[in-house]
Amino acid sequence: MDLVTPQDIEAAQHRIHAVPGPSAAVRTPLLPLPGADREVWVKPENLQPTGAFKIRGALNAIAALPEPVRARGVVAYSSGNHARAVAHAAHAFGVPATVVVPRTAPAAKIAAARALGAEIVPVEVAERESTARRITAERAATLVPPFDDLAVIAGQGTVGLEIAADLDVDVVVVPVSGGGLLSGVATAIRARRPTAKIVGVEPELAADARESLHAGHRVSWPVELRTRTGADGLTAEPSELTFRHLVDRVDDIVTVTEPEIDAAVAHLARHARIVAERSGAVAVAACLHRQLPPGRTVAVVSGGNIDAEDFAAVLSLA
Amino acid sequence: MDLVTPQDIEAAQHRIHAVPGPSAAVRTPLLPLPGADREVWVKPENLQPTGAFKIRGALNAIAALPEPVRARGVVAYSSGNHARAVAHAAHAFGVPATVVVPRTAPAAKIAAARALGAEIVPVEVAERESTARRITAERAATLVPPFDDLAVIAGQGTVGLEIAADLDVDVVVVPVSGGGLLSGVATAIRARRPTAKIVGVEPELAADARESLHAGHRVSWPVELRTRTGADGLTAEPSELTFRHLVDRVDDIVTVTEPEIDAAVAHLARHARIVAERSGAVAVAACLHRQLPPGRTVAVVSGGNIDAEDFAAVLSLA
Repeated sequence: MDLVTPQDIEAAQHRIHAVPGPSAAVRTPLLPLPGADREVWVKPENLQPTGAFKIRGALNAIAALPEPVRARGVVAYSSGNHARAVAHAAHAFGVPATVVVPRTAPAAKIAAARALGAEIVPVEVAERESTARRITAERAATLVPPFDDLAVIAGQGTVGLEIAADLDVDVVVVPVSGGGLLSGVATAIRARRPTAKIVGVEPELAADARESLHAGHRVSWPVELRTRTGADGLTAEPSELTFRHLVDRVDDIVTVTEPEIDAAVAHLARHARIVAERSGAVAVAACLHRQLPPGRTVAVVSGGNIDAEDFAAVLSLA
Repeated sequence: MDLVTPQDIEAAQHRIHAVPGPSAAVRTPLLPLPGADREVWVKPENLQPTGAFKIRGALNAIAALPEPVRARGVVAYSSGNHARAVAHAAHAFGVPATVVVPRTAPAAKIAAARALGAEIVPVEVAERESTARRITAERAATLVPPFDDLAVIAGQGTVGLEIAADLDVDVVVVPVSGGGLLSGVATAIRARRPTAKIVGVEPELAADARESLHAGHRVSWPVELRTRTGADGLTAEPSELTFRHLVDRVDDIVTVTEPEIDAAVAHLARHARIVAERSGAVAVAACLHRQLPPGRTVAVVSGGNIDAEDFAAVLSLA
C-alpha cells in the first residue's frame, strides 16, 4: 500500500498557496500557550476559512485534478467540517459541489454549505456513502473523501511542514478521528524533524484508534460507543490507509476525558484568545493533563465550529 | 515636532523579530472575515502574548535601550494591556519591571502583571503618573509610556508593515484611544501603500479623537464622559505627539455604538473564531455597520482580554 510521501506534501503546499484571495488556506502562526508544565505552542487551524484544517485537504484534492475532470464537479458526504471545506474549495475553483448530508444534520451546518454554493442532498444516515457514490458516477464527478485519500492526507500534512518551518519542535500532538490529519502531519514531521515524537489524541469515550494502534490491527468500536463524546468531530475510525500511516509514523495515541476537553476549550479562550470546538481542543487537553514525551511541544487545534450558546456555557462553567 | 518615520518602524520590526522563543511578538496572519458587504480581512492582534498589540511597542522600546540603561529596569503606569505588555517584555529581556496601578484595578489584571515578575505599586488613580515618574527617577530606570513615545509608536507600526506585506490593501481600519497604534500603522501604510485610506474608529461615547481631528486641534472630553463606553481600553486621549500623526496621516475617524461593538465581538467569535475584547472589536464594528471608502479592507483587532463571564454573556445575547 502506497503511503503519502514528504514530496506529496510539498506539492500540496505549492498548490494550496497558489489559490488567490480570501478562499486560500491561512498560513497559521504558532501561538505560545501558558499554563502547562512545559513550553507549549498552539497551531490554530480553527482560524482557517470554514473553521478547520479540512480546507487544506479539500483544496489540494481539487487543485490536483486535471482541469476537465475538475470542471465536472466534486461530491462529498459529511455533515461537518469536511463538507464545508469541500464546498468552499469547489467555490474557490468555480466548480460545482454536491454535499450528501444526513436528514438529521443540524440546519445551521447545512445552511453553511448551501451558502457556499453547494447543492445539498439530504438522505438517511445509512445511505450517505452509497448516494454520494451514485451521484459521483452519474455526473462523472470526483468524490473527495474526508480522509481515506492520498491527496487529502497530503493537504492536511501541510500543517506539519509549517510547524517544522517555524519551530525546532520535540513533540507534536494531534487530534485523531479518521486519522487523515495525523497521517499527514506525522509524515511531514518525520521528514523534517526525525527526532520529534508524534502523539495522537482521542476522547476516552472514542478511543478506537488507540486500541487499534496498541493491538497492531484495526479494532472497530460500535457507533453507539464512539458517539458518546461531546467531541463530535472525532467519531470516525481510521481506514486501512490511514491506519498504515499511524503504525508506520506515530509514536503513541493517548486519551482525554470529557471534563478535560471542556477545560481545554475554556483555557484556549482565556489564554490563546481563540474559539475551539471540543474536537479541536483534545491535543491541548493532553498537554495540560497527560504525561507526554519531554520537550518543546506543539498542539494542533484542529477546528473552531462550536455553537455560540454551547461555547458560552463551556466558558461559564470553567 | 519629529514624527515616526517608516525607517523607525523597519528598525522596530528587526528588533521585535530578534527576540527568541515564546516571549516574541507573533507574526499574525490576515484572516478573511465574512459577513460585510465588502472584502474584509482581520489582523488578529488579540493573538499576541498578553493578548494585545501592546507587546510590539513594549518590546521595541525596551530592545532599543542601551544595555546598561535597560539593565536598570523599566516602569509603566497602566492597569490594562500596556502594563501587561511592559511586564512581559521586561521579563523577555531579563530586566526588572515596575508597574504603577490604581488601587481600584481588577485583581485579575494585577495578578497577570505580577505573574510576569513585575513589581506592583498600587496608588490612588490621580497619583499614577507622578508616582511612576518618581520611581523612574529614584531608580534611574526608564519610563515606557503607553503611547506618547516614538519607540512605542514605531513598535505598534509593525502591524502596518505586516498588513502591507500580506495584501494589496485599499482601506485600513484601526481602533483609536491614545492613538499610538493608529499613528504607527498610518505611517507604515502611507509609506508602503500610498493610495490606501486610513480610518480610525472610536466608540460614539468616547469620540474625542474624532472631534479633535475634525476641529484641527485637540479637544478634551471629561473623563466621566469618556469612561461611559464598555470599550474600556479606548478611554485615553491622543497626546500632542500622536495627534500630529493623525492630522498628518489619517483620512478620517468614525464612531460606532455600544450595541454595534458587542455585535462585532460576537461576529468575530462566530466567523473568525477569535476572542476579542470590546475595545479590540471597534474596527470590525465599523466594517459591518458604517460607510467606509471602497475596496479591500483590513480591520485591526487590537486585543482579546475580556472576562470569560462577560464574553459568554455577549455571545448569549447576540
